[in-house]
Amino acid sequence: MERLLRKCQIRNQLVRECMAECLGVYVLILFGCGSVAQVTTTKDKKGQYLSINLGFALGVTFGVFVSRGVSGAHLNPAVSLSLCVLGRHPWIKLPFYVLFQVLGSFLAAATVSLQYYDAIQAYSGGELTVTGSTATAGIFATYPADYLSMWGGVVDQVISTAALLLCVLALGDQRNSSLPDGLQPVLVGAAVLVIGISMGSNSGYALNPARDFGPRLFTYIAGWGVDVFKAGGGWWWVPIVAPCVGALLGTLIYELMIEVHHPLSPPELQTSCQEATEGKMGLELEGGATRL
Amino acid sequence: MERLLRKCQIRNQLVRECMAECLGVYVLILFGCGSVAQVTTTKDKKGQYLSINLGFALGVTFGVFVSRGVSGAHLNPAVSLSLCVLGRHPWIKLPFYVLFQVLGSFLAAATVSLQYYDAIQAYSGGELTVTGSTATAGIFATYPADYLSMWGGVVDQVISTAALLLCVLALGDQRNSSLPDGLQPVLVGAAVLVIGISMGSNSGYALNPARDFGPRLFTYIAGWGVDVFKAGGGWWWVPIVAPCVGALLGTLIYELMIEVHHPLSPPELQTSCQEATEGKMGLELEGGATRL
Amino acid sequence: MERLLRKCQIRNQLVRECMAECLGVYVLILFGCGSVAQVTTTKDKKGQYLSINLGFALGVTFGVFVSRGVSGAHLNPAVSLSLCVLGRHPWIKLPFYVLFQVLGSFLAAATVSLQYYDAIQAYSGGELTVTGSTATAGIFATYPADYLSMWGGVVDQVISTAALLLCVLALGDQRNSSLPDGLQPVLVGAAVLVIGISMGSNSGYALNPARDFGPRLFTYIAGWGVDVFKAGGGWWWVPIVAPCVGALLGTLIYELMIEVHHPLSPPELQTSCQEATEGKMGLELEGGATRL
Amino acid sequence: MERLLRKCQIRNQLVRECMAECLGVYVLILFGCGSVAQVTTTKDKKGQYLSINLGFALGVTFGVFVSRGVSGAHLNPAVSLSLCVLGRHPWIKLPFYVLFQVLGSFLAAATVSLQYYDAIQAYSGGELTVTGSTATAGIFATYPADYLSMWGGVVDQVISTAALLLCVLALGDQRNSSLPDGLQPVLVGAAVLVIGISMGSNSGYALNPARDFGPRLFTYIAGWGVDVFKAGGGWWWVPIVAPCVGALLGTLIYELMIEVHHPLSPPELQTSCQEATEGKMGLELEGGATRL
Repeated sequence: MERLLRKCQIRNQLVRECMAECLGVYVLILFGCGSVAQVTTTKDKKGQYLSINLGFALGVTFGVFVSRGVSGAHLNPAVSLSLCVLGRHPWIKLPFYVLFQVLGSFLAAATVSLQYYDAIQAYSGGELTVTGSTATAGIFATYPADYLSMWGGVVDQVISTAALLLCVLALGDQRNSSLPDGLQPVLVGAAVLVIGISMGSNSGYALNPARDFGPRLFTYIAGWGVDVFKAGGGWWWVPIVAPCVGALLGTLIYELMIEVHHPLSPPELQTSCQEATEGKMGLELEGGATRL
Repeated sequence: MERLLRKCQIRNQLVRECMAECLGVYVLILFGCGSVAQVTTTKDKKGQYLSINLGFALGVTFGVFVSRGVSGAHLNPAVSLSLCVLGRHPWIKLPFYVLFQVLGSFLAAATVSLQYYDAIQAYSGGELTVTGSTATAGIFATYPADYLSMWGGVVDQVISTAALLLCVLALGDQRNSSLPDGLQPVLVGAAVLVIGISMGSNSGYALNPARDFGPRLFTYIAGWGVDVFKAGGGWWWVPIVAPCVGALLGTLIYELMIEVHHPLSPPELQTSCQEATEGKMGLELEGGATRL
Repeated sequence: MERLLRKCQIRNQLVRECMAECLGVYVLILFGCGSVAQVTTTKDKKGQYLSINLGFALGVTFGVFVSRGVSGAHLNPAVSLSLCVLGRHPWIKLPFYVLFQVLGSFLAAATVSLQYYDAIQAYSGGELTVTGSTATAGIFATYPADYLSMWGGVVDQVISTAALLLCVLALGDQRNSSLPDGLQPVLVGAAVLVIGISMGSNSGYALNPARDFGPRLFTYIAGWGVDVFKAGGGWWWVPIVAPCVGALLGTLIYELMIEVHHPLSPPELQTSCQEATEGKMGLELEGGATRL
Repeated sequence: MERLLRKCQIRNQLVRECMAECLGVYVLILFGCGSVAQVTTTKDKKGQYLSINLGFALGVTFGVFVSRGVSGAHLNPAVSLSLCVLGRHPWIKLPFYVLFQVLGSFLAAATVSLQYYDAIQAYSGGELTVTGSTATAGIFATYPADYLSMWGGVVDQVISTAALLLCVLALGDQRNSSLPDGLQPVLVGAAVLVIGISMGSNSGYALNPARDFGPRLFTYIAGWGVDVFKAGGGWWWVPIVAPCVGALLGTLIYELMIEVHHPLSPPELQTSCQEATEGKMGLELEGGATRL
């Protein structure tokens, strides 16, 4: 059996990375949106807001575990973009990463929809709506709270994603965290948990263009219709654009307040370069050469 | 005293493995079903759905801690089967593992029933029923939600168990997770936690034929009667068959998308073989030779 | 300042161990009973049963962190007794350990009572009662549920404490768990968490004679009166006797099903002896010689 | 880009430490007060008291991760003061640390206020009040429960902060905890979690003069007015003074009961000095020379 599987081996680095990003985001959304589906369709009886926070947090943790050795576990176009801007990831790979990240979240939304088909039918009476008391579109993509202005939503997503990047960069900065390598996925999940707990109520903490757009596209196709793009005053572009801005802002803050000031002694310099080359913590220098 | 105990030493490897699997599943079900008993008999006053999720998650963690050094901590016939199909576990041991896994869960159900005897009597008024407002059979085995079709239940269990195997295989894949060995039981528990949070409401996330069948058999014998097999339109076979299919599916997905594509450099190859032989993470090659 | 403190150094091993046990149990009860006080006096508004489970779990974790390097962190007369029976702790130290464990829990109960003085007065209207709708004795010691028979309570405490020892021994068994040494306190806390989640509703999972008797004694003296011994049909002796029986039972089960069967190769034998001598994980051989 | 950033490098040690303390406290308050804002403005629908506990706990964890490699992650004037008294931190740096800690919490309160601007407007109807049914000042600073006397509040804060220091010192004491270095931030967060669970209901567990005073100052300026200093009978000075007393008390207890009695064998002595010099765990000897 193992030998049979071995025959399917693909050696192309980019293909492998794309598959890993796709599967990683798939796992993230499968658990994340699954937890929303469970809370929504059971009307808070088998879960509550905290379980949604845990669903996305552990979804991220296992999404990272599934992919980090291959692709560095970006799992988020905004993260990929930041790394390209910092020069730690080649620009040429960016569109491939983004495409497969969105594909993974699309497929995961389809799987959640399949797994909760009976539950969604029973809950919504067969009506797939975006708003109203039995709305189910919120299982898949994020929508803003009633009180939130468009500008308030942009600020919300910029701050949340900046906070995410602050945490992720600190975890990956060996001169600051010195975290055992294998535990970084757990702590990245914890960062998503605390963001969901403290910044989730305004607009559902998308933080990630792929997390939001893939499932939204799925609901558009699968029967919820064009309302998924119209709702919230045309909200859909905010979780795509604002996280990218926020990621860059968070990166800048961490770099300017902490990382660039680390003194470089010769051996440290060498180690840090080496570590970067080895592609730890979703922050790889050059995909083609990075194996753990 | 220690010397006295030492005299009881058993050297037969298979007997030791069977005892370890039995005790591991016992611990898993003791905590898992115990948490359901606590929530059910206190009518959600001393626990809620999240505490059941935590009960099974930590039950798995400690079940693995109790047995992994001896038997590799399969604790699940569907996992044992997958490993046999992959050629990482000898087929001849499969029936023994399964038998003792079911025995462990049967004994644990009996223990929970003993510990909660007064509570179940008080809650149910002495009537042991499978359905109705004071039903208590759900403490032990899983039953589908009212809205769930049989086919929907099969899909639910296949997806959930595939997700479990995806996570477990990623955690055990040294080139992906590089998790400290001693922390794998905690993360396997976290995988069960997130599955309970995001895939638990349809049919109670059995994921494991032994987890479901042993306690169901116990309730059949202990006074709940033949209804435990009739309920849910003859639901009982789904948590036996579907997890096996799901486990194979999850294994296939992880192998084809990630594991088989890892490049094998000579030293890595050697290390990976060695690690496999040492039987880390419930994924041992050959039980007879594996000691941590 | 440091030099000033250094002058207070005590070199007597037993005195140091007694102080460590005392402080360890103090921390455990301070957090554990504090969480019950918070939930009780706020009528579930600032906490719920799960937060009590977390309070005792993290109380144990930090109690172990505070004392393990000095006394091995028994923190529980039932654990000390089991170790004496197994020959891993000298009988002569047992009464001292027990005395200081009870002293620690007594002092902690007094501290909780001081910290929550205003809250308890406001909640109970100044009436310190053991039963009734504003009873506050349950903040400190455990009382059985209404439905529980005395015999059922004994069974409950025996099973719970046996489960605790099963987990603790597995965590300390290097050939099974291989857990990083520094994380054992966290996992011991997790064991207490899952026991609270799955075995807490019958009688409040004392698991520990000192945890129950010290605070009970405090309430007897501090104004709750003789009812603390009369309530539940004279329940007070059960959390003293049953945990000792349960601890021995759990030890026996783990030893007979797992630990005695580990094969001893010469180097392993040596290592295991050495580890035992170094007094890891609350299971020290001989206090006088054990320093981390 | 990296080269551009590198040009902004600051080499002055004190400036770097102040920036790190500022950013660390910023992260702590951003997540902590954010979680209160979420619970308050959604009326417990998207969070509850436990999520506030988790918000502050993980806020501390990531605040420590962000700053520990640079400043030792005091994040709390009471901790800085204790270390100065113990002679492990130079007195001359104390005012700078405190100033930037307060600055960080002030800026974080402003950020939370910005992110929740729409939500606070909707919840409070545009009225920024300190008391009443739609009070929002409690999102930022702590206020005592109605029943709490001033003296009871002082006792509460002294005990809570002493408990915090007990835990933190035990975690940092290598001869007691032997915790992997990278995990200390997680366990420090867990200590804050358990204090919130067991000592939070009286007055909101400030534990930290900067955590309370910075956000209070912000609310004073931003529209809540002078009531933020008058409320609770002029409560504002308690979370400034009492934590300092508590921190010294906790330090004294841990030193006198555990740490000073550790025997010093020559190699241990050397190691311990070396560790101290390397400034692990927020307990650095001399800031200027400490780099991880």
